[in-house]
Amino acid sequence: MGELLRDAYAVQTGIGPRPLAGGRLPRPVIEIIERDDGLINGAPAEHYLAGPEQWQPYDHRALDRVAGSVLDVGVGGGRIALELQRRGVPVTGLDISPGAIDIARRRGVRDLVLATVDEHARDGRRYDTVLLLGSNLSLIEGAQRAPGFLAALAALVRPGGQIIAHGTDPYGTTDPVHTGYHRRNRERGRLGGQLRLRLRYRELGTPWFDHLVCSPTELAELVNGTAWRLADVDRADAPYYLATLRLAA
Amino acid sequence: MGELLRDAYAVQTGIGPRPLAGGRLPRPVIEIIERDDGLINGAPAEHYLAGPEQWQPYDHRALDRVAGSVLDVGVGGGRIALELQRRGVPVTGLDISPGAIDIARRRGVRDLVLATVDEHARDGRRYDTVLLLGSNLSLIEGAQRAPGFLAALAALVRPGGQIIAHGTDPYGTTDPVHTGYHRRNRERGRLGGQLRLRLRYRELGTPWFDHLVCSPTELAELVNGTAWRLADVDRADAPYYLATLRLAA
Repeated sequence: MGELLRDAYAVQTGIGPRPLAGGRLPRPVIEIIERDDGLINGAPAEHYLAGPEQWQPYDHRALDRVAGSVLDVGVGGGRIALELQRRGVPVTGLDISPGAIDIARRRGVRDLVLATVDEHARDGRRYDTVLLLGSNLSLIEGAQRAPGFLAALAALVRPGGQIIAHGTDPYGTTDPVHTGYHRRNRERGRLGGQLRLRLRYRELGTPWFDHLVCSPTELAELVNGTAWRLADVDRADAPYYLATLRLAA
Repeated sequence: MGELLRDAYAVQTGIGPRPLAGGRLPRPVIEIIERDDGLINGAPAEHYLAGPEQWQPYDHRALDRVAGSVLDVGVGGGRIALELQRRGVPVTGLDISPGAIDIARRRGVRDLVLATVDEHARDGRRYDTVLLLGSNLSLIEGAQRAPGFLAALAALVRPGGQIIAHGTDPYGTTDPVHTGYHRRNRERGRLGGQLRLRLRYRELGTPWFDHLVCSPTELAELVNGTAWRLADVDRADAPYYLATLRLAA
């Protein structure tokens, strides 16, 4: 969703044409998230560009866990990478969106790669920490994709490497819109929080994709049998959590 | 979209459960507007509850044109009706949404009617000014609906009555997403700005409906041959305008 980030950047900085409604009034930049059961939500895009003073506590604690060189998977507008740079941490931002890479570069992120994790795993570069922040743990998709995704991340780290991931336990809700969705997912052999989503912005839209929101228990099961072990789960901000995965010795 | 207003009201006042994302973080209340060509926009809902200090200039000038008793068509959260009450102007709020009526009542609007304009025209009540503010001029829908809608409004006013309507001229844009839509509309015998829309909020959605965005010239043509005449168009905030319609003598 490069266009979304570009517009949010124009609103924040005044650089580039900012979106207007009816030709004159500023139009807020809002990402639309549609689920395949018809649930639809709008989320203002500025959080993609938010500075550390606007972050949630788990983002700060995630960065405190960083060690060595960092791969920021799904760098987006670069909010995490910029703060790591400011702290003097070597960081590479990875994204599949050329528009995101462009905005992250314009905002000052120095090392950027336009690729999937699988593609980048074949580039031969290695890191000490892989970050899956924002909603990027969702890239694990589900039981089918998890082994391949986690293998690609294992190929991207040096011995002793770690993944720091931010997750949300989706099962605390009593909202029938969500509990019914979880139940129907399980009836079809999917994880409860294996959301089928597409993102829309004005006339643009992604294809439908699987976006996994999983509990720490489910994450442990997905990690089981891979090169990784779930070393720690920080639940201080429940239902949000920070998971640390380490390469199994 | 009563649920949308209810949630926006909860956010603004703290009265009632306010919407949360992931069970803990506040979720912004955003109305989703989908056009039948796939264009989709999100609009934060708080403007429905905005006080006069946050209004656009044309809303203030609209209220300056009010005379006598007022029917506020599409009262929504009651922002216009509340200000008229504050000024001592007799005002009735009309809406087809029970949720909107509920919120307008809780916010202090005293005289509210749950009905369409056609239904209310049969109730026998009469007003001096009909307001079509916000985007409520769009209720004119198109050439087919205009005579019936304007006849119902004529039946709702006393001799000498007026309509004050806020419109937007849609044809100033050069965005091909819009100009292409206007062209395809005209090719099908519709007005260029006769938008086919539905509103969505979380799991809820309206049916598709025609929402007319017309130029002052088009409005004059739609009014021609009805009980009304287009007495004045105030274009001080172009592309927005205020149209005053008066009963033809």
